[in-house]
Amino acid sequence: MSQTTDRSDGGDSTRATEVLGKLRSSIDNIDAALIHMLAERFKCTQAVGELKAQHDLPPADPAREEKQIARLRTLAEDADLDPAFAEKFLNFLIEEVIRNHKAIRG
Amino acid sequence: MSQTTDRSDGGDSTRATEVLGKLRSSIDNIDAALIHMLAERFKCTQAVGELKAQHDLPPADPAREEKQIARLRTLAEDADLDPAFAEKFLNFLIEEVIRNHKAIRG
Repeated sequence: MSQTTDRSDGGDSTRATEVLGKLRSSIDNIDAALIHMLAERFKCTQAVGELKAQHDLPPADPAREEKQIARLRTLAEDADLDPAFAEKFLNFLIEEVIRNHKAIRG
Repeated sequence: MSQTTDRSDGGDSTRATEVLGKLRSSIDNIDAALIHMLAERFKCTQAVGELKAQHDLPPADPAREEKQIARLRTLAEDADLDPAFAEKFLNFLIEEVIRNHKAIRG
């Protein structure tokens, strides 16, 4: 694709808008899938939280988290996703899960 | 499930460990799916970033983000996921995307 800007080439700009629209439509589809997978994930972690509360197990499990991080970093590398981002993402999820587990216990 | 603790009932504790293992296996499957969807999402946003850099468009797009947030909150509600969490998640992704777009531009 040429380096011309919107102002200097109307046709190129129209083509760019089309491509942008298609990419955004794919992003929206992926986001819908992500939201539904996350909903399913939180159903599982909610059940884990209830089980842990019943059996007086601690909300956090550092050994399990370490394994999860190592596994997701490898999966990310294979999928050409930044492993550091995958780790940050898992920590973001775990933070929310622990907050929920504490709420169940509380 | 009974409220007996690990110490007072060995059988109940074994059952709890089994259930926990099954739930964790589901979480691991979902996480693998999430990582692959995220890898695909970043392919799209990478292409958006390159397009924006070529056409000198700003990395952030508040109008688009507002629409995305409203849509994901609705999807989350329908899937019984906390809409506030869905919004936090999208912001987490957008932050990373804007960082990447700035790197492409830079």
